[in-house]
Amino acid sequence: MLGGRILYGGDYNPDQWLEHPEVLEQDVRLMKESKVNCVSLGIFAWAALEPEEGVYQMDWLDRLITRMEEEDIQIILATPSAAMPHWLTQRYPEVMQVQADGRRNLPGKRHNFCYTSPVMREKTKAIDRELSRRFGRRKNVILWHISNELGGNFADSVCHCEYCQAAFRKWLKKKYGTLQNLNQAWWNYFWSHNYTDWEQIHSPVPNGETTSTALLLDWRRFSTEQIHDFYQMEVQAVREYSELPATTNFMYFFKGLDYNRMKHGVDVISWDNYPFWHKRKDEVPSAVKAAANHNIMRALKRQPFLLMESTPSAVSWREYNPLKRPGMNMLAGMQAIAHGSDSVLYFQWRKGRGGYEKFHGAVLDHKNGTNTRVFREVTELGERLAGLGEKIQGTVNRPKAAILFDWENWWAVEDTQGPRLDIKYVKTILSHYRAFWEQGIEADLIGMDEPLDDYLLVSAPMNYLYKDGYADRVRAFVESGGVFVTTCFSGMVNETDLCFTEQHPLEDVLGVIQEEIDAPSEEFENSFHYDGKTYPAKFLCEISHAKEDTEVLASYEEDFYAGYPAVTCHPFGKGSAFYLAAGSDQEFLRVFYRDVFRKAGVENALRAKLPYGVTTAERIADDGTRIVFVMNFKNEPVIVEDIGIWTDAETQEQYEDALQMKPFECLVLTKQKTDGN
Amino acid sequence: MLGGRILYGGDYNPDQWLEHPEVLEQDVRLMKESKVNCVSLGIFAWAALEPEEGVYQMDWLDRLITRMEEEDIQIILATPSAAMPHWLTQRYPEVMQVQADGRRNLPGKRHNFCYTSPVMREKTKAIDRELSRRFGRRKNVILWHISNELGGNFADSVCHCEYCQAAFRKWLKKKYGTLQNLNQAWWNYFWSHNYTDWEQIHSPVPNGETTSTALLLDWRRFSTEQIHDFYQMEVQAVREYSELPATTNFMYFFKGLDYNRMKHGVDVISWDNYPFWHKRKDEVPSAVKAAANHNIMRALKRQPFLLMESTPSAVSWREYNPLKRPGMNMLAGMQAIAHGSDSVLYFQWRKGRGGYEKFHGAVLDHKNGTNTRVFREVTELGERLAGLGEKIQGTVNRPKAAILFDWENWWAVEDTQGPRLDIKYVKTILSHYRAFWEQGIEADLIGMDEPLDDYLLVSAPMNYLYKDGYADRVRAFVESGGVFVTTCFSGMVNETDLCFTEQHPLEDVLGVIQEEIDAPSEEFENSFHYDGKTYPAKFLCEISHAKEDTEVLASYEEDFYAGYPAVTCHPFGKGSAFYLAAGSDQEFLRVFYRDVFRKAGVENALRAKLPYGVTTAERIADDGTRIVFVMNFKNEPVIVEDIGIWTDAETQEQYEDALQMKPFECLVLTKQKTDGN
Amino acid sequence: MLGGRILYGGDYNPDQWLEHPEVLEQDVRLMKESKVNCVSLGIFAWAALEPEEGVYQMDWLDRLITRMEEEDIQIILATPSAAMPHWLTQRYPEVMQVQADGRRNLPGKRHNFCYTSPVMREKTKAIDRELSRRFGRRKNVILWHISNELGGNFADSVCHCEYCQAAFRKWLKKKYGTLQNLNQAWWNYFWSHNYTDWEQIHSPVPNGETTSTALLLDWRRFSTEQIHDFYQMEVQAVREYSELPATTNFMYFFKGLDYNRMKHGVDVISWDNYPFWHKRKDEVPSAVKAAANHNIMRALKRQPFLLMESTPSAVSWREYNPLKRPGMNMLAGMQAIAHGSDSVLYFQWRKGRGGYEKFHGAVLDHKNGTNTRVFREVTELGERLAGLGEKIQGTVNRPKAAILFDWENWWAVEDTQGPRLDIKYVKTILSHYRAFWEQGIEADLIGMDEPLDDYLLVSAPMNYLYKDGYADRVRAFVESGGVFVTTCFSGMVNETDLCFTEQHPLEDVLGVIQEEIDAPSEEFENSFHYDGKTYPAKFLCEISHAKEDTEVLASYEEDFYAGYPAVTCHPFGKGSAFYLAAGSDQEFLRVFYRDVFRKAGVENALRAKLPYGVTTAERIADDGTRIVFVMNFKNEPVIVEDIGIWTDAETQEQYEDALQMKPFECLVLTKQKTDGN
Repeated sequence: MLGGRILYGGDYNPDQWLEHPEVLEQDVRLMKESKVNCVSLGIFAWAALEPEEGVYQMDWLDRLITRMEEEDIQIILATPSAAMPHWLTQRYPEVMQVQADGRRNLPGKRHNFCYTSPVMREKTKAIDRELSRRFGRRKNVILWHISNELGGNFADSVCHCEYCQAAFRKWLKKKYGTLQNLNQAWWNYFWSHNYTDWEQIHSPVPNGETTSTALLLDWRRFSTEQIHDFYQMEVQAVREYSELPATTNFMYFFKGLDYNRMKHGVDVISWDNYPFWHKRKDEVPSAVKAAANHNIMRALKRQPFLLMESTPSAVSWREYNPLKRPGMNMLAGMQAIAHGSDSVLYFQWRKGRGGYEKFHGAVLDHKNGTNTRVFREVTELGERLAGLGEKIQGTVNRPKAAILFDWENWWAVEDTQGPRLDIKYVKTILSHYRAFWEQGIEADLIGMDEPLDDYLLVSAPMNYLYKDGYADRVRAFVESGGVFVTTCFSGMVNETDLCFTEQHPLEDVLGVIQEEIDAPSEEFENSFHYDGKTYPAKFLCEISHAKEDTEVLASYEEDFYAGYPAVTCHPFGKGSAFYLAAGSDQEFLRVFYRDVFRKAGVENALRAKLPYGVTTAERIADDGTRIVFVMNFKNEPVIVEDIGIWTDAETQEQYEDALQMKPFECLVLTKQKTDGN
Repeated sequence: MLGGRILYGGDYNPDQWLEHPEVLEQDVRLMKESKVNCVSLGIFAWAALEPEEGVYQMDWLDRLITRMEEEDIQIILATPSAAMPHWLTQRYPEVMQVQADGRRNLPGKRHNFCYTSPVMREKTKAIDRELSRRFGRRKNVILWHISNELGGNFADSVCHCEYCQAAFRKWLKKKYGTLQNLNQAWWNYFWSHNYTDWEQIHSPVPNGETTSTALLLDWRRFSTEQIHDFYQMEVQAVREYSELPATTNFMYFFKGLDYNRMKHGVDVISWDNYPFWHKRKDEVPSAVKAAANHNIMRALKRQPFLLMESTPSAVSWREYNPLKRPGMNMLAGMQAIAHGSDSVLYFQWRKGRGGYEKFHGAVLDHKNGTNTRVFREVTELGERLAGLGEKIQGTVNRPKAAILFDWENWWAVEDTQGPRLDIKYVKTILSHYRAFWEQGIEADLIGMDEPLDDYLLVSAPMNYLYKDGYADRVRAFVESGGVFVTTCFSGMVNETDLCFTEQHPLEDVLGVIQEEIDAPSEEFENSFHYDGKTYPAKFLCEISHAKEDTEVLASYEEDFYAGYPAVTCHPFGKGSAFYLAAGSDQEFLRVFYRDVFRKAGVENALRAKLPYGVTTAERIADDGTRIVFVMNFKNEPVIVEDIGIWTDAETQEQYEDALQMKPFECLVLTKQKTDGN
Repeated sequence: MLGGRILYGGDYNPDQWLEHPEVLEQDVRLMKESKVNCVSLGIFAWAALEPEEGVYQMDWLDRLITRMEEEDIQIILATPSAAMPHWLTQRYPEVMQVQADGRRNLPGKRHNFCYTSPVMREKTKAIDRELSRRFGRRKNVILWHISNELGGNFADSVCHCEYCQAAFRKWLKKKYGTLQNLNQAWWNYFWSHNYTDWEQIHSPVPNGETTSTALLLDWRRFSTEQIHDFYQMEVQAVREYSELPATTNFMYFFKGLDYNRMKHGVDVISWDNYPFWHKRKDEVPSAVKAAANHNIMRALKRQPFLLMESTPSAVSWREYNPLKRPGMNMLAGMQAIAHGSDSVLYFQWRKGRGGYEKFHGAVLDHKNGTNTRVFREVTELGERLAGLGEKIQGTVNRPKAAILFDWENWWAVEDTQGPRLDIKYVKTILSHYRAFWEQGIEADLIGMDEPLDDYLLVSAPMNYLYKDGYADRVRAFVESGGVFVTTCFSGMVNETDLCFTEQHPLEDVLGVIQEEIDAPSEEFENSFHYDGKTYPAKFLCEISHAKEDTEVLASYEEDFYAGYPAVTCHPFGKGSAFYLAAGSDQEFLRVFYRDVFRKAGVENALRAKLPYGVTTAERIADDGTRIVFVMNFKNEPVIVEDIGIWTDAETQEQYEDALQMKPFECLVLTKQKTDGN
């Protein structure tokens, strides 16, 4: 557990207040008051740390770190590459990104640097080394925070400059060896697209190539590689005088970077979580989305992670920004811990007086000092986490189920042409995960390269692209007893978006033969009958043929494909494979997965049926101690029944059979081995 | 009849499979199995045919043509200019279009070449001549397919490069002679827009001129001319060693090019038809739109045309892409024949493994070989067409009615400012044509330059722009007995978008004096009473005055123009002119045209009242033999009553009085002279 | 009163008809017939006046002015800078604006000149002086019309060229002195945005800086300054040989320019009014918007203004353009007079035959001469105004209430990030003003720099930004007895968008302490109870604390802030301050302001309760004579009751107690001193 305790605090920008020493002193005092024990420093402070090229001015930071040390506040120290100072962009315009329209950015905003530019790398390395030299061995500095939200640049994440074009070509040469290989892999004889000279290759841009899906895919892969390379360069630089671990803060379902690739070289996964609470009275969709993303982050290394940013109140960038209702800050913070976070960190400690984020929620507002609801609620959570640290020390969630969530698949399935153009991969994944969450079943959200052995159940919705070796891993998984679920429009293409011919790579496992895919209009929506009820069949309706030993669980009821299978289950080896030929709705997925869970033998921590809005998550210690979090996302009291006997890990209160929960409450339970569960 | 039979087959891209000879051989075998007798070859094969500048590699094509010849498969041979190889764009960037924002395209996609560029013309000519030399006299090559879907370039069809600007100025100089003439014709003293130097003229672009409607109009005319000139250049090139006819495939209500102008030099009209079947359960709107477009194509030369592309299954480029329901492929193919096509050709024979169109419907899918519904339905149609060829040999549709559909009018009425900016010319035309279709009345959709003498009825909805001489032709047509229909916002401007002053050019014919045009908001919609029913008056409501001898068939009922005429009929010479001052709805048009048809003496081939969803079309041989197609676009059985006595042209079955039709059925009837009809 | 009479007429473009002298002669004749007594000449005539650089051709204008003089038609003479001739843009491309994407415009459209360009200024000055020399002392020329709708350039109003960048930096240097001052004022340490060289500063553009709200604000201020400077340059030029007053026509709620700044140097305010009449049957929203804008214009100098443009019929640029219903032209014209205009001028006298505005409403249409409804209605109003001139001579409206409407506030509140991004300042202002209008209460719409002493009531909705000194002026106003109304999200930031800390600048006056602002989603909308009824609380709901002596008039009823004040009133000095913490609806504002008016002692001219759709406005002469306009914006008869005794100023008819009004009628009443009101 990094820092030896649950880290509590967040982004702190003293560089905005250097001319107000009384503010800085007040900050320290109020951090203590609110139980803050950790701050992230220097994230956008390049201009304050290096006001002129090569002239470092770090004494203010030194004094601050010392002051924090006196108060036992730990520090996550950032490298400042996320926001370039004006002297840099003025003297070296090459450090700024070139957008897809071929125009180089002008100075401004943030995150908009070219990660290939030699000058950018040189200047970044220089200040990183200086930070490392000055602060890399300070006792209360515990982690390097490399740059900020890499790829999040107000545009399409990437740079199209000549340096990047050259690097892209070099990367392709290394990958494919010859142009012939590349032309074949990309199916370039289509529309006379085959290249005869490496120099002909250019990143996909609106007034150039946008129709070559394999190019799109490799360009996205390259962008991840290149940004990862920049990250690694920075890690190397800060390691010059320091042995601290490094992280970089990931984002909320961020399509621009493949975090399964980015994670290499990241010692501790961390991310920024901004769910849209209170969009609807029903908070479940937001809770599900946040939970899914926590699980992605945890599954990247199957280890605890850090919640690096969250708002203690409202954000400022949505069309409208509701205040977090009382209790939601506590619940959302506990949700992070429940799903594997070892921290609750906020953006931001104090609202700035000016600039783009002056109205973004903060622990301290412009007015009223500590006499605010927000400050009181932040303090309350600080106190709770202080007591909880020891209990979760060394624990991590160990789900028996996994859902495949893979960036390459995301990219490929949304870039392809047909059968529909409005496929939303994340939405699909969330609709499946929601069925898990509602039944309290934990799941890792994992990429296609991950081992499947630890799971009883793996679900792979809309798994359009199959990486090399993936089908074999799934086959082995099912053969040895696993339960596998997948859907139509899966197993369509290989890694370069070439369609499989002959047969589906898992046809033997799935027991179905695909023929056609209908994308019906609203008036042509179909239906099927499952477990006594009729459900809609829509969005994508595959017409396929069940093999002899395949159990048809539901069939289409209308149109020319009435009678064709909509839902099947096929025994294979010691396991089974479910197949959803028909797209359907949330209600069906709930019922369907209930049966899948039963077949796979997975159940929730309480072994209880959970009321709507309640879910569970469980962190397990190496010695088997179970810490179970029960969360009520309804702003009303609920009762969870038939739970057996549990002890409240915080109050030691004993619960028998039923659990009375308050609105937005999170209870932390534990069980002695002798409790017999 | 080109090729001596109904051509059946479609786009074939063996260049994507050259490394898979077994696939190529399978293709030939399956073509025979499905009754395919014609393929279009080489449409995007430039890179395969000329892998390096000046190095031709055409043996593969030679072998293929030979193989096809052995199997009696005819070939439509394409010039490959639609997709430029990378060596060409790399060495000569000028071949790529400059977009309206002044930026030259980068390589990629297709169709994006500059049709003015001397290099592009030179390189195109060279490969065209080589194709001509090698294959222009091959026995089974029957037609040149020049380029592909000219103008369809993912953007605004046209190029704004300096070559094009110079050509535009030259074209204007030729047209207007002096700048004074041009300034007057374009009304350039408005906003000080008059030119004092030809070099001041620039194509309309967003950051330059967009408000000069006459400039917009002439730029569109020029673009058609220039693309037509490119087409002619290619025709000349392929004619070097060949005497085959030439075509280029037109598109679905394509605004970019005036096909009435493009048709000159096109020996056989051909086009690509992609209706949105199964968008709604009611297929009539899609059927009407396809029918209208077929009729445009047929009317271009008043001759049979070729259906060059269609999908045997689904397309891949709409937001969602439903599968063609069983029977629809047959019906849509028969619809083409019924409206004058001598072919049914598909895009595409076989789905590619990769690239932008890999999921576009094809006769052969990635999997399952011939064991697919699609292959079976394709084969079924192939068999039917094989039997039908002889019967339709030498026949063509000869309607007695015409609807004016003119590109210059389309451009002008949608570019003008006021009275509404949301005028949709095609939508308007289709709503009028639908009244014809529903009553089984065939109509040619013709441009303003066409002779009107062959018709009993001419309808000209929203005929905003009057070309020189057009009003006189209409006057003569009515005078000699024709029935003419037109609407408000017609006869407003001349060829350079100058408003007519004094009076409407057909005021004497129409018998109404226009005063103002209201574009009422929803709450201000008006109404009128016609033949016992009230109909809405909306969208555009003209306030006009009826002349003394004008019969007012309906008057506005509300607002300050209550009592003013909404629908009138004016006798003129031996004919009459109907005038729709008020915009209305489909229901009114149905009733209105019923009366118009009666007045004009036009009726459908069966002389019967048709149930909803059923229409007829008729091809007539020089000897008067009538082949009548009765099509049921409902996916339900219907009965057509009171048809008299007909013989089924395919089965020789005799129908008396009533026709029982199956869902999506098309029957082909014929009548002996002695049948007495 | 300029010209000694109510000016009636409008934009006249004879330069489009110079080759048609018969048209010009007809124009003069018909102007007389329709009582037109004034035309605006030469607005876009640069090309006609200076066909080649330095070659002036003004005889045609001379002849026209002479002809007008003979007919007693007065002339507003325009400088022609709004539309550049092609010789100018061709030889000096620098005169064209550079857009935010860094690309210079190509020639075309209008208004798209760079107001900083030295060449543009030089060429403009030259022709302006020539116009001044030739016509500046002509007897019937009464006013200079400088350029046209400055800033209205089809894009974002401003130019980003290097001349403008340099001028911007110079302006900033003058304003801030040092970069340190600027960095502090703009809060530039945020995201390392502080400048170390003036050359680093660039206008806000999409691919550069868009997130620095203080930069945005100063850039908008600079743009106003620069365009104003251009205006002043032109005024100086036309004054060379002339002492006539000058104006420039302002626009409808035009965000681009701060008219409170622009007004300096404008001798007579004039503006172009294009309400969307007949969008709904309920004309009140359009009437309110037009009235508000009239009041802005009048309040700029607290003097009569000129209605420079309006349409006699329909416009041509909206999605759909309804005709003005009978009576609306009269009513809308009278509304202008009622709110302080000394003119009713149209765009345009005669429809051009071609160009962008050929279908824009005009007194004369393309056809039918004077035999049109429009011509008749125009003549009717002309006759009425001719009789009214003497009566309103020397009168002006003198409201007792004001609403704060400030451009800087508009810019700032819509550019800031959070708590919502969809704040529409004008919409908010109009909803408050509507409560005044509906109750017949006149109000000046004034900027933050205006003195408040003349008012009994000042309302400042969504007054986000407080200019220096403003809070003190409000405090003094309330202290001395004024009634002040303001809302949540007011008093947030200073002039450079820096948040106030410690406390709200008017906390002592308002008696509330702000804590947080909720931007609830639809499902989370709150409510409050006021005067016996429940109203919604929505959009922005501030949570604040009332001080001890603050009267809480309504409290939130739901959610966690139930019980917190929604509406308060705080006594301060001799006055009171109302505070709307909660956003609400129109119905609430109606009731709320009814109570506010009572408290402030303001009432309408008739001291009567007005039926829906009816409002009043009053012009008062120096001797106290009152001219009261009663306007009925319903297209139905209404009765206004309890009005006391009034005399019709036009007919001398006496009204007692009740006023019977026809649809769309405007009555002009007056009262003898002895009438006792």
